Amino acid sequence: MPYAKFTSEIFVRPDDIDMNNHVHYSRYLDYVLAARYEQMARDYKMSMEEFVQRGLGWVVSACSVHFKRSLAIGDTAIVKTHIVEIGTTSAKVGFEIIRKSTNKLSADGYFEYTLVNLETGRAAQITDEIIQRYSI
Amino acid sequence: MPYAKFTSEIFVRPDDIDMNNHVHYSRYLDYVLAARYEQMARDYKMSMEEFVQRGLGWVVSACSVHFKRSLAIGDTAIVKTHIVEIGTTSAKVGFEIIRKSTNKLSADGYFEYTLVNLETGRAAQITDEIIQRYSI
Amino acid sequence: MPYAKFTSEIFVRPDDIDMNNHVHYSRYLDYVLAARYEQMARDYKMSMEEFVQRGLGWVVSACSVHFKRSLAIGDTAIVKTHIVEIGTTSAKVGFEIIRKSTNKLSADGYFEYTLVNLETGRAAQITDEIIQRYSI
Amino acid sequence: MPYAKFTSEIFVRPDDIDMNNHVHYSRYLDYVLAARYEQMARDYKMSMEEFVQRGLGWVVSACSVHFKRSLAIGDTAIVKTHIVEIGTTSAKVGFEIIRKSTNKLSADGYFEYTLVNLETGRAAQITDEIIQRYSI
Repeated sequence: MPYAKFTSEIFVRPDDIDMNNHVHYSRYLDYVLAARYEQMARDYKMSMEEFVQRGLGWVVSACSVHFKRSLAIGDTAIVKTHIVEIGTTSAKVGFEIIRKSTNKLSADGYFEYTLVNLETGRAAQITDEIIQRYSI
Repeated sequence: MPYAKFTSEIFVRPDDIDMNNHVHYSRYLDYVLAARYEQMARDYKMSMEEFVQRGLGWVVSACSVHFKRSLAIGDTAIVKTHIVEIGTTSAKVGFEIIRKSTNKLSADGYFEYTLVNLETGRAAQITDEIIQRYSI
Repeated sequence: MPYAKFTSEIFVRPDDIDMNNHVHYSRYLDYVLAARYEQMARDYKMSMEEFVQRGLGWVVSACSVHFKRSLAIGDTAIVKTHIVEIGTTSAKVGFEIIRKSTNKLSADGYFEYTLVNLETGRAAQITDEIIQRYSI
Repeated sequence: MPYAKFTSEIFVRPDDIDMNNHVHYSRYLDYVLAARYEQMARDYKMSMEEFVQRGLGWVVSACSVHFKRSLAIGDTAIVKTHIVEIGTTSAKVGFEIIRKSTNKLSADGYFEYTLVNLETGRAAQITDEIIQRYSI
């Protein structure tokens, strides 16, 4: 079953730029997080706040990034994410970051998010309801 | 002579939030910088890049901020800036940050920017041409 | 009554450096926060965590910074802070940031911290006990 | 040929903490960068500045991180890095981040750094001299 890709636009801020005059490499992870946050509410109709109200949260348990072409000041990053697979307590999410002005790939990779019980800090089971809402 | 106020919108990113569940207080300064960067190109028609091409740059020499109401995840910050006065080597810029959803003031204050010669690092005179382009 | 100055050392991290090859100006505020956090526990013997356990927190309600000389990669910042005055619900804290290698002033200014009730978000009265512990 | 592991200590700053009350996950990458920066000068005797003087720079071309246990305010991160292998234009560097207070693994993974000609932005060959200095 192929999952849909959703798209967010992030405008590069001057404070994202580092001494190499490019977007600092760890900020790419923040762009993915910002895109994911927007898409959870807008596209999956299940916002991060809704999880928190249920006493649940998503934490990043792993990530892998390939940096292809740098982003610079004035750029807009197009961030596409999609579900790769859903496990019992975690979901793998793929992403691509595209430089809007050239439509060329800037970075890609994946994140592994683990669902946690916010009170105990332990992994929580991903219920059928969550699977259904994410299965788009 | 009253100067015009220009407006930018900054969407709060999850990485801007700190342990108090609000936008981290130093990020307000980054929002002003991002707004100013956009407004220099879009409104004053004199982008930061144009200054750099002339061997000039603006550095923050002072700032004063009053924090009134916090911004939270999901918020959009409306950042208004305007010239307060232009000196021989520096310009004072006032700002207001407004929470878009409530239209209430989140923070205000001012920045003092000094024009510097990028090669020598020393203060550079603000020419009549720059004054004219900023005098809106 | 003059209050004591306390000192912390912050080593500049590469991610603190911005496109001008200097410590990004908003990171100076983060250095003051880091110094203050350390000094609350080590010097005032009243850690931020202790406040949180009492349902209290300190939020920055205002700040004023003068940037004198930039800090660069490889630098260590010496951050000195001291109480300027204690009001009914807020405390004014002065700071100096000194570049260790040259012993020259990099920035100075002050912060105004307001004590808040973490549950209500409202200003809380600074008790005599807190005044006494801070009165060094 | 096994390469040596070098160690740096990074004290968690309050601005590293995010809304989950833990070190923000992208800051782990900044800790590795800070450790690497220190170790290049102190342990490999070939500082980042020395590369820049030769017109060369290291850029992160890929990274992979496993997040095991979170770091919190007040923690010190012990960051160990070591060369995994050296290619013609890139080097793979492994890392471990350990929470000092418990001596438990907080995160591990690797970075791939590509040597670039700072003028052209293209990959540059890693010379025998560089290999020798890194071969410890």
